[in-house]
Amino acid sequence: MTPPDRVFLVGVAGGSGSGKTTVARALAADFRAEDVQVVLMDSYYRDRAGVPLEERARINYDHPDAFDEALLVEHLEGLRAGRAVDTPVYDFTRHERVRERVTVRPSRVVILEGILVLALEPVRALLDARIFVDTPGDLRVLRRLRRDVHERGRTVDSVIAQYLETVRPMHEAFVEPSRRHADLIVPEGGHNEAAIEALRTWIGGLVERAGPGRGAPA
Amino acid sequence: MTPPDRVFLVGVAGGSGSGKTTVARALAADFRAEDVQVVLMDSYYRDRAGVPLEERARINYDHPDAFDEALLVEHLEGLRAGRAVDTPVYDFTRHERVRERVTVRPSRVVILEGILVLALEPVRALLDARIFVDTPGDLRVLRRLRRDVHERGRTVDSVIAQYLETVRPMHEAFVEPSRRHADLIVPEGGHNEAAIEALRTWIGGLVERAGPGRGAPA
Repeated sequence: MTPPDRVFLVGVAGGSGSGKTTVARALAADFRAEDVQVVLMDSYYRDRAGVPLEERARINYDHPDAFDEALLVEHLEGLRAGRAVDTPVYDFTRHERVRERVTVRPSRVVILEGILVLALEPVRALLDARIFVDTPGDLRVLRRLRRDVHERGRTVDSVIAQYLETVRPMHEAFVEPSRRHADLIVPEGGHNEAAIEALRTWIGGLVERAGPGRGAPA
Repeated sequence: MTPPDRVFLVGVAGGSGSGKTTVARALAADFRAEDVQVVLMDSYYRDRAGVPLEERARINYDHPDAFDEALLVEHLEGLRAGRAVDTPVYDFTRHERVRERVTVRPSRVVILEGILVLALEPVRALLDARIFVDTPGDLRVLRRLRRDVHERGRTVDSVIAQYLETVRPMHEAFVEPSRRHADLIVPEGGHNEAAIEALRTWIGGLVERAGPGRGAPA
């Protein structure tokens, strides 16, 4: 249960539907939890419990202000310092935090995944390496559409409206410009086996460099 | 002097002045020659010994046809099959091949570097991994200008004229579109330590996977 000698923070950013979640999971897949873990930035949406329910649906969830940056930074700093942190759990249907917390213990490599991981300066500054998953807009929007319609029961029209009203403008304003902070860019995320293999080897190298101290399973 | 069990071919492409040569050299720097070597696609410019000298200066050296693709493919196939190849040496001032050849023995990883490495389909098809070094056009042209003026004694006007007449149109027509074949993109090549470190770890993994057979030093 001793934390590792060093914790590497790797950011994986990219637009909605870019395949960044698939990439982040694939990078962690072959490792033990004490070696590599994925933390989702989506867990750090601000708690809207104080906002009337009908207003919550109108909030722009693709803007940087939608995230509890201070808490995320505090937790990343904690993990880097070898401390376990109690991460929030977000209820996406009600737009509020649930009471439960998930304890994340420091692993040798922590992969932070989210659309704005490279856009928020204080978060970006904590990352040891920055990856951007770059997928053409038409493929991204189709993936999002398919997911929201099939998995979340939304109508095509509502997905399109939200995409044009907030997702796309925020992508152009914040996500896409954050690409320039990337150390490496993965084109067409999610189906790029060569990139995944290369990055996985590199993550394995970070795990070794993190030293012999042992992290604890999540 | 036994060749390695397997030879991995890694392509590093990017525009003129992108920093791809720096990236390719940095990737090979810490390895022994029997493990990792760089082969320059520029060595495979067609021999123009049969063309009158004054005409040679007017050839478009940024077009795919300027390269001896057949010889390059033959050599890459030879290296992959574990055979040593006698690579050509090109005289850039006279635009012809010199008599000497440089023998390249198969190493575990061969990095092929050049502007059109991902643009030529038969070359691209032989690559196990494809990297594109992506650097903004203004930075690329300034690097090229500085290099050609300071290291090659050219005038600013002649560099600009050549850039606008052939380098830029060929970049737009062949180099930039080849970006979509990349498995990984390195932004702002040459000064991206995190990317170099990640890719070097990955190359080290390829060297291990190439097996215990020993390549010969170049």
